[in-house]
Amino acid sequence: MSVTIQDIHQASQRIKPYIHRTPVLTNESLNQKVGVNVFMKCENFQKVGAFKFRGASNAVWSLTDEEAKLGVCTHSSGNHAQALALAAKMRGIPAYIVMPNNAPQVKKDAVAGYGGQITFCEPTLEARESNLERIKNETGANVVHPYNDERVIAGQGTATLELLEEIPDLDVIIAPVGGGGLISGTSIAAIETKKRIRVIAAEPEMADDAFRSMQAEKIIPSENPKTIADGLLTSLGTLTFPIIQERVEQVVTVSEESMIESMKFIWERAKIIIEPSSATVIAILWEKKIDLSGLKVGVILSGGNVDLGKLYW
Amino acid sequence: MSVTIQDIHQASQRIKPYIHRTPVLTNESLNQKVGVNVFMKCENFQKVGAFKFRGASNAVWSLTDEEAKLGVCTHSSGNHAQALALAAKMRGIPAYIVMPNNAPQVKKDAVAGYGGQITFCEPTLEARESNLERIKNETGANVVHPYNDERVIAGQGTATLELLEEIPDLDVIIAPVGGGGLISGTSIAAIETKKRIRVIAAEPEMADDAFRSMQAEKIIPSENPKTIADGLLTSLGTLTFPIIQERVEQVVTVSEESMIESMKFIWERAKIIIEPSSATVIAILWEKKIDLSGLKVGVILSGGNVDLGKLYW
Repeated sequence: MSVTIQDIHQASQRIKPYIHRTPVLTNESLNQKVGVNVFMKCENFQKVGAFKFRGASNAVWSLTDEEAKLGVCTHSSGNHAQALALAAKMRGIPAYIVMPNNAPQVKKDAVAGYGGQITFCEPTLEARESNLERIKNETGANVVHPYNDERVIAGQGTATLELLEEIPDLDVIIAPVGGGGLISGTSIAAIETKKRIRVIAAEPEMADDAFRSMQAEKIIPSENPKTIADGLLTSLGTLTFPIIQERVEQVVTVSEESMIESMKFIWERAKIIIEPSSATVIAILWEKKIDLSGLKVGVILSGGNVDLGKLYW
Repeated sequence: MSVTIQDIHQASQRIKPYIHRTPVLTNESLNQKVGVNVFMKCENFQKVGAFKFRGASNAVWSLTDEEAKLGVCTHSSGNHAQALALAAKMRGIPAYIVMPNNAPQVKKDAVAGYGGQITFCEPTLEARESNLERIKNETGANVVHPYNDERVIAGQGTATLELLEEIPDLDVIIAPVGGGGLISGTSIAAIETKKRIRVIAAEPEMADDAFRSMQAEKIIPSENPKTIADGLLTSLGTLTFPIIQERVEQVVTVSEESMIESMKFIWERAKIIIEPSSATVIAILWEKKIDLSGLKVGVILSGGNVDLGKLYW
């Protein structure tokens, strides 16, 4: 049983009291530049600065009181760790986070700041997984995977429900793909709400495992990718890949250069901060690799967590 | 006859089809940091990236068809020049802009990009005024001063009408003061809508002519100020000063350092780009120079035009 549109509607009701309903912004300079009517769903304004808070909140608030008491756990060094820590804090339950000991200090501080209980481990997938397994067994905490989890996928889909409520006549929706949680939820929410809508995934050329997985019709793991889009480094999951195969029209890859250019354009013209992973969806329009001219295109700006000390231009 | 609340209501109706109704954003990290409930009126999202478009639009659309045909003119090197050029373009009339020949290329390009007809002159106030006078006489164009103009003041006040419509129970409104157009319009709109509301002006310590003018009870001109808040370099006007004296509780000055810190905080946490002039209103809360703890404080984020090539941190 995969995720259904009902799951996403339920998630939306469940998390409504805890999340921000983020605004949908438009920008004339952008529309003129790319020849498309763009509607930007601003998840960079979401709590913890990224859509990840939706999925984490849905997982946390799906638990029974008895389950919840034991807490939640995950291994992550990114936005998901912060999101889960904050969601758990809001429910008043513990969050156990396994982080590699080489994670940037700013990320450790952020997770700790939201009350997450951090266990540091060697920076290998094996060490992360074995530590998580141990914590789960010791505490009884519920494991919340960053993307390969139905509750998380359903939560991520709620952004698209809101977007379509506001702009019902979209022709296309574009979201970035990393592990596939966001694009999976997006594609179910979009297509089950509006049959003929087109769903496109945006991916960096330098981390094109989803593109290659679609070609090969099986999951091709991401291998040591080098891209500024640090939110899109992971491989697809066993839950997310079939959903993407069934509903996503195509994965379009974009260059590092066009990500930087379009990110700067959005900062300068739309006056909002987006992170490189979010810039992929604008970069598709920027590169005009596929013809969307004149269409109404919704894009999910997935997050706004950047280091203002080192800019890319 | 000064500007009345009716003038501001009329301006609001007049410019509604042309301007953006900008969102009011809140941010929990900011509220926690400063101990105040802050409501940010995002004029950085306004057309041309600043509130200036409101006043310029009101002036342009106040003209009769006959007057309008002859165009509008001003001398300015900043946001007002762009705002007037775009407002004129939207009405389909000429805008003659006198700019100092040492204005940054990016600003010249922006004004030209909006269809403004630029006359370059020596970078002195005398040269600017004599060129403007000549153009006015040659063309019959209507002079629209950046702030010392009742139509402009009324237009700038419309942001506060919108803010109070959305958040009626504000205790305080803070706006930056340069020439005084924004704070004048803000103070009339606020106090004539809600008698007991407090209106505070924010000014850089390094350009504290408004602060000193209030002390001296007469206009003290700004003399070669050195501040990163490049939108707040001008002196008060004969129209704006009496309005400010009557309605603004106090002018609070802020340090360059706290402007930079609070600007960075807003970029990082609220994920929006604000310019240094806008950071003054946050810096007042940041410095806690006056006690506003627990109050509902509306702030006008006046603009978001920054050079992303040179950041201040």
